[in-house]
Amino acid sequence: MRTRELRSGDRRVLVVVPDKREEAVAACAAAAGEHGIAAAQVTAVGGFESAVLGYFDRVRREYERIPVDGQVEVLSLLGDIAVHDGHPEPHLHAVLGRRDGATVGGHLLSGTVWPTLELIVTEVAPELTKRWDPESGLVLMDPSA
Amino acid sequence: MRTRELRSGDRRVLVVVPDKREEAVAACAAAAGEHGIAAAQVTAVGGFESAVLGYFDRVRREYERIPVDGQVEVLSLLGDIAVHDGHPEPHLHAVLGRRDGATVGGHLLSGTVWPTLELIVTEVAPELTKRWDPESGLVLMDPSA
Amino acid sequence: MRTRELRSGDRRVLVVVPDKREEAVAACAAAAGEHGIAAAQVTAVGGFESAVLGYFDRVRREYERIPVDGQVEVLSLLGDIAVHDGHPEPHLHAVLGRRDGATVGGHLLSGTVWPTLELIVTEVAPELTKRWDPESGLVLMDPSA
Repeated sequence: MRTRELRSGDRRVLVVVPDKREEAVAACAAAAGEHGIAAAQVTAVGGFESAVLGYFDRVRREYERIPVDGQVEVLSLLGDIAVHDGHPEPHLHAVLGRRDGATVGGHLLSGTVWPTLELIVTEVAPELTKRWDPESGLVLMDPSA
Repeated sequence: MRTRELRSGDRRVLVVVPDKREEAVAACAAAAGEHGIAAAQVTAVGGFESAVLGYFDRVRREYERIPVDGQVEVLSLLGDIAVHDGHPEPHLHAVLGRRDGATVGGHLLSGTVWPTLELIVTEVAPELTKRWDPESGLVLMDPSA
Repeated sequence: MRTRELRSGDRRVLVVVPDKREEAVAACAAAAGEHGIAAAQVTAVGGFESAVLGYFDRVRREYERIPVDGQVEVLSLLGDIAVHDGHPEPHLHAVLGRRDGATVGGHLLSGTVWPTLELIVTEVAPELTKRWDPESGLVLMDPSA
């Protein structure tokens, strides 16, 4: 992972490019942790050689896994970072593209980068936190906290 | 809807999280109106329990409605806000994901949030306005105005 | 193409709206060049009346072309700008939507705008550069350069 921290006024922007075959969600979390970024918008484009996406099942209250094998374009990777249990936690959704332009998408559980992923992590606040939501069983961003 | 206004230099960022079952486009417009934001970039991820998307028909010059029923991941919600008739008007497009990773997308006419939607509204200017376009019959952003 | 340059602290934001039937990637590159923007995040929504998408073939090490004919919604256009050979070069991925909400996506090789495309180009640094990658044969962003 190569990272560059840029400053614009009192806000920081990280440009993060994981290495080939590095896992994207972990790389994003690690870069945010190393630079002390606790609340951010995340966008990225690039490619994965494989990925695992998720769909949240409302009844079972857990993510169903959608494995994606083979090289895909990362058409959109969008999300945010907030703090949970003292660590920056990325919440990322992805739309992936196959050879014929067909798409598959979900909550990004993991993605193996190839040949590149160009992440732009834009700090939006000193801190945003998450809170456990009893109805869904998920830990969700709480901007009022 | 819970909203947090953050400042970075002379630009503001709103983090907007609608309540469960709140309509997303109206929530985005209301948050922008309450905070006096007249020109912004919008990104979001989260989930909808139902939505209505649109496809612009060039001949009939109106949106065809694409109803989406059942829980979907909001894989990408992307767009902007500009002022029309004195009010901030969101222009949002969405890609939604089903249980098997299949996607459906369009102009976001309405979306019912569940369990969350994490909107990041980044002010880009004091104001951007829209102007009626006779060829399409649409009101379109005019950055030169 | 109509462009407006906005300043926020020491960072600039371009709002770029190509003309009807203008090619989107060239318009984005031209706007960045005219305003001296060498490193940026790009997001956009709008419509294309036709487009050519790409899928990177790992074996042949070149993009396979995916022609998209007919009016489509630009559901997400996401990417960045970095400098290559002295010129700002957009790297853009797109997800496009058809009348029934079906999607097609890829690396954006070209897109013919109709009726509008609302590009938001947010400067992230004085400069980001690209470097030739021997394994893929591509020129990739190098944030450490």
